[in-house]
Amino acid sequence: MTYCLAIRVNAGLVLCSDSRTNAGVDNMNAYSKMHRFAWMGQRYFTLLSSGNLATTQAVIKKLHGDVKQGAVPNLQSVTCMQEAVDYVGMTNTLVQRQQSERDTAHTNFEASFILGGQIFGQKPEIFMIYPQGNYIHESHEHPFLQIGESKYGKPILDRVITPTIDLERAARCALVSMNSTMRSNATVGPPVELLIHRRNTFDEGIFLHLGDDDSFFQALSQRWNEGLVLALENLPRFSWEDAGENTHTGGQIYPFPPNP
Amino acid sequence: MTYCLAIRVNAGLVLCSDSRTNAGVDNMNAYSKMHRFAWMGQRYFTLLSSGNLATTQAVIKKLHGDVKQGAVPNLQSVTCMQEAVDYVGMTNTLVQRQQSERDTAHTNFEASFILGGQIFGQKPEIFMIYPQGNYIHESHEHPFLQIGESKYGKPILDRVITPTIDLERAARCALVSMNSTMRSNATVGPPVELLIHRRNTFDEGIFLHLGDDDSFFQALSQRWNEGLVLALENLPRFSWEDAGENTHTGGQIYPFPPNP
Repeated sequence: MTYCLAIRVNAGLVLCSDSRTNAGVDNMNAYSKMHRFAWMGQRYFTLLSSGNLATTQAVIKKLHGDVKQGAVPNLQSVTCMQEAVDYVGMTNTLVQRQQSERDTAHTNFEASFILGGQIFGQKPEIFMIYPQGNYIHESHEHPFLQIGESKYGKPILDRVITPTIDLERAARCALVSMNSTMRSNATVGPPVELLIHRRNTFDEGIFLHLGDDDSFFQALSQRWNEGLVLALENLPRFSWEDAGENTHTGGQIYPFPPNP
Repeated sequence: MTYCLAIRVNAGLVLCSDSRTNAGVDNMNAYSKMHRFAWMGQRYFTLLSSGNLATTQAVIKKLHGDVKQGAVPNLQSVTCMQEAVDYVGMTNTLVQRQQSERDTAHTNFEASFILGGQIFGQKPEIFMIYPQGNYIHESHEHPFLQIGESKYGKPILDRVITPTIDLERAARCALVSMNSTMRSNATVGPPVELLIHRRNTFDEGIFLHLGDDDSFFQALSQRWNEGLVLALENLPRFSWEDAGENTHTGGQIYPFPPNP
């Protein structure tokens, strides 16, 4: 399995991915799922990948190859993010079709991607690309996108992420979302990669590669646990608990229902 | 969809369920998924149900009918929780087989249950019953069970629930888990039912029926949101942030990788 997410806030982009791949639970490996393309001062694109590893590797290879060979379109020549995501979506289906033609066993070659990036003079954007090659972008009400094992880590994003929070807060929230997912699903695992791109700064961004033993990631996980325990401690008390001001009188107690 | 969970701590049992049923997203209804059987001073059982509504209704009806008719076994006559869960599991498969025999369209009649209860002189227990009629109990390391849409609400349980926390804390945590799930999946919905059984008190327990507009449930949700924002605020800061003591020096920044 995989968990990748991207957040777009007013201040820029946050992208985060795990690195665990598996072909069955008895065949686990670590591969980076974060693929970066950048032309300093001009444009940057980051792709997060999920699904069939041969497909995602072939897609990334073709994207690099198209740039080198000056194929049209390529990530250096596209004129806007829309053109970029359309090109990546098309490449995704092209590769899957090639794999399927060789296949004799109805294998699933599907892959999904998140594309985040910015082209000079335009705004930063994030897109989620489906195995079918079509895609969606985030919205103001829902300024993040996820692929792979998205459920465990979604509630914290739902509750906290808005376009106005700063980049570092959004990045910490992404790491918490990743941490929760890794605790609940053993097929999502370290190292965790985190990339922060400040809006309109066309540099290489801030890139963290956090192994299982990274002291920052460990401190974050422990501090988050403590914060949750405290949050639970501060919840209103039931009406029958003697907790002074913190007791809430709502939540009516009902008698046992009569037998049907 | 459905979300039900049960927690067993040393002090007793907490059971919690949503009430939304749907046959397609254009046909939503509210049905209780918490079914209680109690003989004061002697024993109590609570069943939480998920899956095909006709199946779960037929199972509950048969359990009540067996008691009335003095069938063997029934919930009043079983001598231990193991016998009770085995009987409910068998009833589940029996009902599904009856439904399948009438079926001409390969309909899915599956249902899952959580059974929680205590028989006088024995310990309280919780079990999860699969559509196949087999079942598992909770463990010391994992003192809770979930059916239905279990992923959104699992991280908070994973991080907080241990056998030693008190019943009210466990109950608040169950409500938070339910609240997170309702926010993320529109097919899990109010009213929320919550039942607390203190170990060795064979009374009717404390039963709350919390509608969408219940002031306690609303206060809990709001206070939890505030607590999460605070927890996020207290996380260690990245090395490049100027946050005094709260800055963490870990999390090495890596340069942009060379082109492949």
